[in-house]
Amino acid sequence: MNKVVTFGEVLMRIAPLGNKKLKQTNQLEYYFGGTEANVAISLSQFGNQTQHVGAVSNDFVGDAAKSFLQKFGVNTSAIHNSHHPLGLYFLEVGAVMRSSTIAYNRAHSAFSNIDPKKINWEEILKDCQWFHWTGITPALSLNAYQALKEGLTVANQKGIPISADPAYRKDLWNYGKDAKKILNELVGLSTIFIGGPNEINELLSTKFSYENDDFIKGSKLLLKKHTNIQKVFDKTRKSINANWHKIQARMWNGLEFLETNELEITHVIDRIGTGDAYAAGLIHGLLHYDDTKALKFANASCAIKHTIEGDANLVTEQEVISIIEGNLSGRIIR
Amino acid sequence: MNKVVTFGEVLMRIAPLGNKKLKQTNQLEYYFGGTEANVAISLSQFGNQTQHVGAVSNDFVGDAAKSFLQKFGVNTSAIHNSHHPLGLYFLEVGAVMRSSTIAYNRAHSAFSNIDPKKINWEEILKDCQWFHWTGITPALSLNAYQALKEGLTVANQKGIPISADPAYRKDLWNYGKDAKKILNELVGLSTIFIGGPNEINELLSTKFSYENDDFIKGSKLLLKKHTNIQKVFDKTRKSINANWHKIQARMWNGLEFLETNELEITHVIDRIGTGDAYAAGLIHGLLHYDDTKALKFANASCAIKHTIEGDANLVTEQEVISIIEGNLSGRIIR
Amino acid sequence: MNKVVTFGEVLMRIAPLGNKKLKQTNQLEYYFGGTEANVAISLSQFGNQTQHVGAVSNDFVGDAAKSFLQKFGVNTSAIHNSHHPLGLYFLEVGAVMRSSTIAYNRAHSAFSNIDPKKINWEEILKDCQWFHWTGITPALSLNAYQALKEGLTVANQKGIPISADPAYRKDLWNYGKDAKKILNELVGLSTIFIGGPNEINELLSTKFSYENDDFIKGSKLLLKKHTNIQKVFDKTRKSINANWHKIQARMWNGLEFLETNELEITHVIDRIGTGDAYAAGLIHGLLHYDDTKALKFANASCAIKHTIEGDANLVTEQEVISIIEGNLSGRIIR
Amino acid sequence: MNKVVTFGEVLMRIAPLGNKKLKQTNQLEYYFGGTEANVAISLSQFGNQTQHVGAVSNDFVGDAAKSFLQKFGVNTSAIHNSHHPLGLYFLEVGAVMRSSTIAYNRAHSAFSNIDPKKINWEEILKDCQWFHWTGITPALSLNAYQALKEGLTVANQKGIPISADPAYRKDLWNYGKDAKKILNELVGLSTIFIGGPNEINELLSTKFSYENDDFIKGSKLLLKKHTNIQKVFDKTRKSINANWHKIQARMWNGLEFLETNELEITHVIDRIGTGDAYAAGLIHGLLHYDDTKALKFANASCAIKHTIEGDANLVTEQEVISIIEGNLSGRIIR
Amino acid sequence: MNKVVTFGEVLMRIAPLGNKKLKQTNQLEYYFGGTEANVAISLSQFGNQTQHVGAVSNDFVGDAAKSFLQKFGVNTSAIHNSHHPLGLYFLEVGAVMRSSTIAYNRAHSAFSNIDPKKINWEEILKDCQWFHWTGITPALSLNAYQALKEGLTVANQKGIPISADPAYRKDLWNYGKDAKKILNELVGLSTIFIGGPNEINELLSTKFSYENDDFIKGSKLLLKKHTNIQKVFDKTRKSINANWHKIQARMWNGLEFLETNELEITHVIDRIGTGDAYAAGLIHGLLHYDDTKALKFANASCAIKHTIEGDANLVTEQEVISIIEGNLSGRIIR
Amino acid sequence: MNKVVTFGEVLMRIAPLGNKKLKQTNQLEYYFGGTEANVAISLSQFGNQTQHVGAVSNDFVGDAAKSFLQKFGVNTSAIHNSHHPLGLYFLEVGAVMRSSTIAYNRAHSAFSNIDPKKINWEEILKDCQWFHWTGITPALSLNAYQALKEGLTVANQKGIPISADPAYRKDLWNYGKDAKKILNELVGLSTIFIGGPNEINELLSTKFSYENDDFIKGSKLLLKKHTNIQKVFDKTRKSINANWHKIQARMWNGLEFLETNELEITHVIDRIGTGDAYAAGLIHGLLHYDDTKALKFANASCAIKHTIEGDANLVTEQEVISIIEGNLSGRIIR
Repeated sequence: MNKVVTFGEVLMRIAPLGNKKLKQTNQLEYYFGGTEANVAISLSQFGNQTQHVGAVSNDFVGDAAKSFLQKFGVNTSAIHNSHHPLGLYFLEVGAVMRSSTIAYNRAHSAFSNIDPKKINWEEILKDCQWFHWTGITPALSLNAYQALKEGLTVANQKGIPISADPAYRKDLWNYGKDAKKILNELVGLSTIFIGGPNEINELLSTKFSYENDDFIKGSKLLLKKHTNIQKVFDKTRKSINANWHKIQARMWNGLEFLETNELEITHVIDRIGTGDAYAAGLIHGLLHYDDTKALKFANASCAIKHTIEGDANLVTEQEVISIIEGNLSGRIIR
Repeated sequence: MNKVVTFGEVLMRIAPLGNKKLKQTNQLEYYFGGTEANVAISLSQFGNQTQHVGAVSNDFVGDAAKSFLQKFGVNTSAIHNSHHPLGLYFLEVGAVMRSSTIAYNRAHSAFSNIDPKKINWEEILKDCQWFHWTGITPALSLNAYQALKEGLTVANQKGIPISADPAYRKDLWNYGKDAKKILNELVGLSTIFIGGPNEINELLSTKFSYENDDFIKGSKLLLKKHTNIQKVFDKTRKSINANWHKIQARMWNGLEFLETNELEITHVIDRIGTGDAYAAGLIHGLLHYDDTKALKFANASCAIKHTIEGDANLVTEQEVISIIEGNLSGRIIR
Repeated sequence: MNKVVTFGEVLMRIAPLGNKKLKQTNQLEYYFGGTEANVAISLSQFGNQTQHVGAVSNDFVGDAAKSFLQKFGVNTSAIHNSHHPLGLYFLEVGAVMRSSTIAYNRAHSAFSNIDPKKINWEEILKDCQWFHWTGITPALSLNAYQALKEGLTVANQKGIPISADPAYRKDLWNYGKDAKKILNELVGLSTIFIGGPNEINELLSTKFSYENDDFIKGSKLLLKKHTNIQKVFDKTRKSINANWHKIQARMWNGLEFLETNELEITHVIDRIGTGDAYAAGLIHGLLHYDDTKALKFANASCAIKHTIEGDANLVTEQEVISIIEGNLSGRIIR
Repeated sequence: MNKVVTFGEVLMRIAPLGNKKLKQTNQLEYYFGGTEANVAISLSQFGNQTQHVGAVSNDFVGDAAKSFLQKFGVNTSAIHNSHHPLGLYFLEVGAVMRSSTIAYNRAHSAFSNIDPKKINWEEILKDCQWFHWTGITPALSLNAYQALKEGLTVANQKGIPISADPAYRKDLWNYGKDAKKILNELVGLSTIFIGGPNEINELLSTKFSYENDDFIKGSKLLLKKHTNIQKVFDKTRKSINANWHKIQARMWNGLEFLETNELEITHVIDRIGTGDAYAAGLIHGLLHYDDTKALKFANASCAIKHTIEGDANLVTEQEVISIIEGNLSGRIIR
Repeated sequence: MNKVVTFGEVLMRIAPLGNKKLKQTNQLEYYFGGTEANVAISLSQFGNQTQHVGAVSNDFVGDAAKSFLQKFGVNTSAIHNSHHPLGLYFLEVGAVMRSSTIAYNRAHSAFSNIDPKKINWEEILKDCQWFHWTGITPALSLNAYQALKEGLTVANQKGIPISADPAYRKDLWNYGKDAKKILNELVGLSTIFIGGPNEINELLSTKFSYENDDFIKGSKLLLKKHTNIQKVFDKTRKSINANWHKIQARMWNGLEFLETNELEITHVIDRIGTGDAYAAGLIHGLLHYDDTKALKFANASCAIKHTIEGDANLVTEQEVISIIEGNLSGRIIR
Repeated sequence: MNKVVTFGEVLMRIAPLGNKKLKQTNQLEYYFGGTEANVAISLSQFGNQTQHVGAVSNDFVGDAAKSFLQKFGVNTSAIHNSHHPLGLYFLEVGAVMRSSTIAYNRAHSAFSNIDPKKINWEEILKDCQWFHWTGITPALSLNAYQALKEGLTVANQKGIPISADPAYRKDLWNYGKDAKKILNELVGLSTIFIGGPNEINELLSTKFSYENDDFIKGSKLLLKKHTNIQKVFDKTRKSINANWHKIQARMWNGLEFLETNELEITHVIDRIGTGDAYAAGLIHGLLHYDDTKALKFANASCAIKHTIEGDANLVTEQEVISIIEGNLSGRIIR
């Protein structure tokens, strides 16, 4: 069984039920998530061995966070405890033309204060077949950035494939470092790029459009700049409104452009974590299938996540395969 | 007031809330259902007298099952208690392209172990105007099959109209009998056939397609084979996905083919029991209206069930009539 | 800050969760609403000062009603306590072609029994920039009608703009007065008319259709009859079914006809109070913007209310502006 | 099987969960109750045939009320529908030294407006072995009083035993009649008196204390005044606080004084309806056992009701018998 | 009407339902609290005018916090918005010998980062009759301490009575200042001391025991040290276990020692905020009654808070008076 | 870290909320439990490595059961999947003198049908320091008995300590074997006996009373009969009622009798699994402490479990130690 290692902040999501605003009710529901942990959980459901690395609070909240990952089969032995609180966010869920709104409380979290020295990357990556990181992590703090960089360095030394999802969230970069420089450095230590024109523009200061032609041009430029990167995987989303989306995946593998069919989600259940579902699907696909099937698997994984409550994709490999095979009618399975 | 008698297993449905997977939450919701009991409940809401015959566990679960039927006006005096547990199923509700999944726990249930000798069909069918059965019952056990056969025999002797909904569920036939033979035997004791090419193919080993022409041909063949059957009622379903269905009803009454308009359910609330809602609508229609209106009533009853939570259709006759009259906009009634 | 005064019955809405029928569950959810209070709450969220005038029961239910308004920033100091119970309604929420159903319990409520002498309109309207009333209030009782008439008279003396939403609900007029006569009298004391052909026909005994031409003709006639009315604001609704609506606003300001784009709500969350959201949006618009923007603001306010649970629109001015600016995709705001 | 008939108002209880105040939450829970209906439900659980007579609203609330009674086996065929709303009350549940508070909304209810002419007492009481009424009913309205009096008259003609629970609630007597006179009149039509010094003092303008001696003196005086009354049954309650009660039953059967042991409820779950549980236990006891056992059964029935949520006692005869036999440790039954 | 001003952190409490551990469920319930805000809310329920001063996050969480205070009648116009998150704590509720556990997330909260310059104490205290503070506030941050000190200085200038509840929480003092020195400084600006031997020992480095004699000696010493302090109010708690407490209040008013009866809470509903309920009761008492009644009112207010869910005491003055008058049986009020 | 292996049926508990009867509500709550799995979970919380061996259904219910154990740190790699359903029970929670009631549905469960050949005891017990079993397992089926016997045999060969909790549940023994014979055989393969006079009487056909003297005599006799047994551990329970228990532990270690203090649980939260909490506490104690402390730890572990919702004890070692040290007041830990 393949082992995938992810590194990043475990976040608690707290939300009123349904489409209520916080002040309308005294009832809340919570999930644990965080983009990299979501990838680990999803890969676990697909049948892979996974380990998540990070830090949680040294109280019953951090304990519950680890229990949550364990429930879904993720190894938590390299998640450290800290006297800082667990990062969290509140969510009010919108509908149709009303946006969902997120209020973060993560600036001084256990993960932001992670001590890079406490992470034994040699040990963790010993039997690892894939390492995954996102642009959220280096945005959070110097400590987080340094810990990630060390992990990527060790992974490189071991020749482990590394997927980078360098989403740039401007509001998070508050510790005085230049996002572009750091993200380029870390992408320079990776082998698979998950992103499209937006992310490429951010890294290369280019202005590629969302069109396929520009995606290909941008990807070529990225591969030229970062020769370690072998393939570029992207997805496009058309949002009719908050409840009705269309998803399509595309890739440039250095030689050819591939594109999947569009999948339509007419009744979105939960939008959060769909990008992570794409990444997890892609990693699973690249570990087990060829590029074409991997891309389809990633797209279908992303699409079906829209029907799952919570941050992480909890479907099995078989459920995703079934979508690839064209079973879109959602018949009851008895 | 007409009295309709149904015979079959009362099943408990247990499901996590919303679209959650079981392992995501500690909260569950339950309903009692079972295809034949659903028909009885719906007929009760339409204003008919109903009685359900069967067996439940001799504990507070079985007691709650009977209370549930009584709440909706179904006579439960011929439901026996047994030391075997009540049959139940767990449901995880899907969305869009994600299928709902059902996990059954009914193999050794109170109903499967029903003692045919304990059922006094003479007494039960004394003042009965309609008897309804489905293919689930004879699939469950020899006891269930025998009890049903006796009921049909007595009903035949009394000249009571009998509707057969011989849905074939392969996974249920585990007690060593030949499904086709038994279903043909029991259809041979019935007067109304609820089913289409699928069910006919199963019984007659034919290969009719879903097209209207084939439906007519299949129906003619069925009426030839089973001369007691007078009419064949079917519905077709187009599933865009798990949340968006279109429903249309059709019939062959021996002389002519009738078809209703298509009704579109753009936001499915609960898919389960919609076939039972069709059957209940049809029985009510045939008891009170002509064939054309009965077919429309069945179609509208089926359609509106998609908006009702739980297994049974809980709308009134007036609500269904209103749909037939073209009121589809769902305006608030104050 | 502008102060808007509303007068009317605060109603409690009690409903089973989701699409359940009352008899399916022992769980309920409640909100406080009432058409005029809804307008006050929404105007409060838009940043205006508001005061609601009325009467509630002298028990913990009435206390909770006032607390509810206070929570959303509405001044409740002119809401009186009464030994009569608070008016309430039960709601069963339909879906698709199934109508929602409302069961009222308001005939002998605290508000119906309001004592006009207890309302100090001079004091209340001292620093008021807008007064809003609806046709529900004079329908409820002679007391309610008299109290409203006195308020309108004082407001007129003070030159306060007055919006009239004279929706005619036949079932409510049970105290022996002629609805048409009274509504015409009260419209005669107002300056802004919120209504379309339906309401005009009711007042003027005309038969205008829903077409824009007829809307204009009707509006002209209304302005001729009631010379105090300066502008007529209307919205049209196309209901594909209970879950899928389209909304469009139009106006006649005495000189020209204006019309907004249509806004489509593909997944209605809560239909109730959308008319009140329109009125609140309109009043806010007329207090802060020109007619064109006010109409757009009213339309967008109405549309987004369909995504809010409960009776009152709880969105901010910024959220409505964003819709006017064309942001309809409902992206997550982090 | 014995048939017991009860007559009275079915009330809906609406309450926030746990010990919350209404304004602390948007969630509610409901039950149907009403003192006489509670007696019917409890008698049904003990295995008796029961019928409740009354009136409910002609909407889904009234429909749910009838369904509720049916669920627990009570015949509802003599409950009429009315265009008046169902009576209801809101409850905030206290604890320890904090009182529970009730806010009623019943003054203009369906039951208060009941039409005595619509009740066919001859038919209803045809096969009846017991009739039960309480002092709430004649307090509500002239109509309710007249309907009750007619019922008692017919029951007397048929020689049916009649239990009177003439609790006097001052706040309810608002229609201009003299409570004492009416209650004496109706007690004069009954055979079993459920009440103690309080109720006797109310009827006879006496001043008996709670002591056993005074209970006996009062009972003797009552039997002298109302010669039709054969026995007097009372219970005493010691409330340490809202959560900790002690219950004891006593009787005067015309010849001797009997008293049960005291039963201690250290953790009260629901206080409401415990008096009704006593009455139901007593009626069941008098129908099936001797006086001594009947008194014990009533006392135990009352005590165990404190552990049942909702207004009505839902325990079986066997559970009450077990308490009489001294099983007070509440061991798990597997 | 008296106006009381409180200053401090509004905290959000988030807890799983009942006695569950966080990892046992996905459901949470929340309240807003914070020791000083609790006092304001309770005083509002007693009928006083109140204003709370502080800072909340500039997002929907902070907005909900302010709405919560408004719901209970507290003026929030001097609560500032901040880009820092709202302080919060998670709670797991214990029982019997199992302790409740709290996990704080408040170290970098909006309130800790409050800007003293933004508070216009002159304006706020213009029409104020009482100022209340606790030892939590100066423990949180230098900013919070400075803001409080300025408020106390202005209040002193205006001759406003000031109650100090200088509870010392060691874990909170993390910004490098000496707790003892600061607390003595602030007590030196106050007039009423709420605390007993524990708090006195902390301030004066003494070792008084819990005995009444020592309480008196300590109080005398305190009044000698801080001549501005006029009276010392304390309460003692005996905890049989987490569910069963006994409460008693005592005071030294400079001349005499007073002590109330003990109140026993056999079934604690919510332990949190009972000290704040004592403080609120005391302030209300001192504003409206003599010392003896004030002490009784404080004790009863504290006791009844144990029966209220959430952080703040939501009972009325009348409910507390009723306890003082000896009504401890918790009878239902209809 | 010590590894403890448990073997037995994982059961799902399904229950209505609070003290409701099933028929009173549509809402349920579930936990996974089963006596041996409860022991594994509790030992995991105490910091031990644990593995549970058994079989679950091959559907999402079985998947959720395994996830549940993983969440609490129990290794599930030796839990097999089966096409039989997961065993489950329904629970109605009583109070005071009302018993809780359990309705089982486990007769044909995945575990009952476990295939002994699929369990690789050599592998599982390779690094095991303790093996625990109960009398439930051999009662369920021949397969379960055989699998257990093989496990005990291998454990014996490896010299692993084995705790036997041979509770005899008559109703479970339905597959034709003699309970006494089998239990004696299996106790003969064990080293620690968890049980008292009841269990000894069952095994040895004796009639020892609950008194300490008899406990000692019985223990001596047991050690004589089963020379492999080294120590006998028992607990006694006094149930004032369902909500109020007192617990005390005692032991005979072959040389001396030891007894703990009595711990009083005045407000029982959940009675189920308290025996398993005792066993887990004992095993933890015997692995880490001397007999005296082990007995105290077992007793305190049992007592505190009464405050935990669900079947398994979820407290930490530190929480139990704190009770032993006399901290019974349940103070809040911040």
